[in-house]
Amino acid sequence: MKDIVIGLDFGTDSVRALLVRASDGGILGSAVRNYPRWSDGLYCDALSGRFRQHPLDYVEAMTSAVKAALCGVDASRVAAIGVDTTGSTVCAVDGRGVPLALLPEFAANPNAMFFLWKDHTAVPEAAEINAAARESAVNYLAYEGGIYSAEWFWSKILHMLRTDSAVRSAAYSFVEHCDWIPALLTGVTAAGGIMRSRCAAGAKTMWHPDWGGLPPDGFFTKIDPLLHGVTGRLFVRSHTSDAVAGRLSAEWADRLGLATDVAVGVGAFDCHMGAVGARIREGQMVKVFGTSTCDVMVASGLDRCVRGICGQVYGSVIPGLVGLEAGQSAFGDVYAWFRRLLSCSGEVLLSELEPASARISPGTTGIIALDWFNGRRTPDANGKLTGAIFGLNLGATAPMIYRALVESTAYGARKIIERFRDEMIAVNEVVAIGGISVKSDLVMQVCADVCNIPIKTVASDQVCALGAAIFASVNAGMYPSIPDAMEKMGAKYLKTYTPSAADAATYNREYSRYCRLAAMMEQEIDTYVR
Amino acid sequence: MKDIVIGLDFGTDSVRALLVRASDGGILGSAVRNYPRWSDGLYCDALSGRFRQHPLDYVEAMTSAVKAALCGVDASRVAAIGVDTTGSTVCAVDGRGVPLALLPEFAANPNAMFFLWKDHTAVPEAAEINAAARESAVNYLAYEGGIYSAEWFWSKILHMLRTDSAVRSAAYSFVEHCDWIPALLTGVTAAGGIMRSRCAAGAKTMWHPDWGGLPPDGFFTKIDPLLHGVTGRLFVRSHTSDAVAGRLSAEWADRLGLATDVAVGVGAFDCHMGAVGARIREGQMVKVFGTSTCDVMVASGLDRCVRGICGQVYGSVIPGLVGLEAGQSAFGDVYAWFRRLLSCSGEVLLSELEPASARISPGTTGIIALDWFNGRRTPDANGKLTGAIFGLNLGATAPMIYRALVESTAYGARKIIERFRDEMIAVNEVVAIGGISVKSDLVMQVCADVCNIPIKTVASDQVCALGAAIFASVNAGMYPSIPDAMEKMGAKYLKTYTPSAADAATYNREYSRYCRLAAMMEQEIDTYVR
Repeated sequence: MKDIVIGLDFGTDSVRALLVRASDGGILGSAVRNYPRWSDGLYCDALSGRFRQHPLDYVEAMTSAVKAALCGVDASRVAAIGVDTTGSTVCAVDGRGVPLALLPEFAANPNAMFFLWKDHTAVPEAAEINAAARESAVNYLAYEGGIYSAEWFWSKILHMLRTDSAVRSAAYSFVEHCDWIPALLTGVTAAGGIMRSRCAAGAKTMWHPDWGGLPPDGFFTKIDPLLHGVTGRLFVRSHTSDAVAGRLSAEWADRLGLATDVAVGVGAFDCHMGAVGARIREGQMVKVFGTSTCDVMVASGLDRCVRGICGQVYGSVIPGLVGLEAGQSAFGDVYAWFRRLLSCSGEVLLSELEPASARISPGTTGIIALDWFNGRRTPDANGKLTGAIFGLNLGATAPMIYRALVESTAYGARKIIERFRDEMIAVNEVVAIGGISVKSDLVMQVCADVCNIPIKTVASDQVCALGAAIFASVNAGMYPSIPDAMEKMGAKYLKTYTPSAADAATYNREYSRYCRLAAMMEQEIDTYVR
Repeated sequence: MKDIVIGLDFGTDSVRALLVRASDGGILGSAVRNYPRWSDGLYCDALSGRFRQHPLDYVEAMTSAVKAALCGVDASRVAAIGVDTTGSTVCAVDGRGVPLALLPEFAANPNAMFFLWKDHTAVPEAAEINAAARESAVNYLAYEGGIYSAEWFWSKILHMLRTDSAVRSAAYSFVEHCDWIPALLTGVTAAGGIMRSRCAAGAKTMWHPDWGGLPPDGFFTKIDPLLHGVTGRLFVRSHTSDAVAGRLSAEWADRLGLATDVAVGVGAFDCHMGAVGARIREGQMVKVFGTSTCDVMVASGLDRCVRGICGQVYGSVIPGLVGLEAGQSAFGDVYAWFRRLLSCSGEVLLSELEPASARISPGTTGIIALDWFNGRRTPDANGKLTGAIFGLNLGATAPMIYRALVESTAYGARKIIERFRDEMIAVNEVVAIGGISVKSDLVMQVCADVCNIPIKTVASDQVCALGAAIFASVNAGMYPSIPDAMEKMGAKYLKTYTPSAADAATYNREYSRYCRLAAMMEQEIDTYVR
């Protein structure tokens, strides 16, 4: 009777609801809804790196997407809902766990909204956290790559506390987006009752069993007394996503047209559930090719810290294995930036941009770029770094530059793979998911050639939502474990991009140049004070 | 009766004929004609740096321009014609002094045409010439800044000799554009009879009295035996442009509708005559702001070599003074490149680009560029250098980048001024001529602020042609000397751009960054072998 699970996947621009048959992963329906305020560019300022999302965007888009996906389906067949979101996407909540922007007095205040993963307003705060971590006897960043990012939880909340005294006064605690959605759906009425995601807690919040959960209050108050008491109002335990957060509240059962016995799982970040949707195994990197990338691996028996990646968390991907997360803070966003720069050009040229780029042979133009248009997430987070384009002459055309930008993002991908290998984590192939993996042969082939590694795409463009549905099937008790569910429900491979030996050799040479330029620019940025 | 002189100014894209009243510099008429084949993009390939011009382009455009300028004027009033051209713009000629592309068998062969100043095909040849010069006991580059450019005479002819055996076999000698036009107009029928310009010979051909004219044949054959005998078929003497090259031939008197007693002066490069048109004096830099720049100074009593500029030649500007030439190999071309990159964008946006750039405050975007889109001419020529744009993030807009490009060209201008000062040549003000000087308040003000120097523009957009006319008036015996003629006929000042103290301070900081990045990139290019 109950044979359907729902995967809810909150992306950067929209939410997707996926109805999945638990027995075999068959897709029974799906719907996508854009966030309305975000679509209008509200609360954001790209130049200063401010990207905020209103919680109502999530509420409205989710409600509409679930109802649309269920249209014509017998809703009583739904057993569970799994949730993934972007992250670290953080919001202040009151004592009841309500995001402050849902209160009338903060309805239009960007500081009371979710700080989207790519918000870069907290660069100074990240620097201070890193300084404090370097001075601390316990290395609280050991499992987060050793460098805390401006994109992460503590940087963002500290920035908010400093910036907005009204929001500060009203803030009782703080939530990740992936924690809030299950809490909302299950009718949690106190901030302390929110089930916290292992994935988010371990990768972004410095939570680790080695030091009994979060770092102590003293660590944070030394950075800024404004942080006094925050840890105490956050959480002690965190949960892997095979755990059930609760059942649908009466209100949400009603709003979504579902029964109150529907289980809601503990949330996690999109790429981690996406890796499960893509049936991740050791030796594979599952890479989400989107506006940014999220690069996920799993490892067993890992007894040391991997340097310079963003998260190393037991159970963040598959319970029982260590999940490893890296990523590039801008990927498709770099291409989108360039298209926007030319945007006045009308659709004709833009549609020609990629085919014309694809006709250019590797290593022939002398143009090379650095992909740090949104800072660098891994290896070795550094939010101050910026993008650059080198080797320009008067004959440089838009397709040449576009290709150089594509290549630069592939060099960034290679840097991450090389770091994993330097740290003795084998990377034998890449499984590509995310929009770009199915939209761009050029990007996939360039990545395969630059990284000299086979890249497999999967036969689903909804892998994150599928992963969330796989977790839901375990939440509903339909499978005993994630690997079991994954085996039956996970996405099949679609296509393999095999590296060309000749182009890989050319790109070896160009990659050396990228590394040389990258090192120079990294050195330069430290000497430049605006 | 004979009270009019004609200035003929051959630019990169077109030729201008200016009819000037010799008594006071009053303009009686003018006409501009584009080079037809060049306008169609023939014989050029921007990506490989090949820029060639067909001699018929010059012939046809000049004939049409002179006749158009004379329309309605009593042609018998014309006393003399002065000629300036771009340079080093070089062509192979046969024994009669005829450019090979005028022969039927070479009519469509780019190697038989003029190698335009900005042609960059001879980069390897320039490197070999520099290597040979370093090994030579006599420093033949002492008066050409110590580094021979790919844009100059010997690099280009060596490249041609190596590239095209048919043209090589037919080539008897080689001419600069500014030498060929007076030879053509005066009916010279042997290559040996062509009067050679002091300006071109001293600045580009290694001609200097210290070693009795051109370097010896042995110097060149050591670089490549293909150069054997070339010096002997070039020239021994060179002439300042107050000298008369001859009188109009019957054929050309007829073609232009002028009398055969019209004097034709020895030619020179455009910016040198432009400096005279702008009434250059010591302590001033006359800077031609065009697609590239040409920066001219004059000095008396200079008994040493100035490092890293492109030419230091006694009599190249004003007979009796040392003329000093520097320049930026891309200036307006950089802006044009960016507009072309966006070109699909339609005129609306392009017309907004500069006003929107002008509204951005200095030092606020973090974006900074290197202006070497066509290599670097001065200080210290290096054709391998390329342009770059740094500090890009996802919020970078077209106006921000445009402004950074404008600033980069101003930084390049400052580098040259600083070099002159380092070499103890005072630079107290800049006199701006050329199209951009009257078209762009933004560019002029940014240059004034970056260089922290007053910039004066002149009330004429035809200063080079006016300079050629000033020389013509001396050729015709109407004035005893160039300074006398210049005083009466030269252009008046129009406007002064005064540097803003605040912006100059901001730009000091940004300029330091430019210098740091420039040094890094200069080092990097030497390690990069495609």
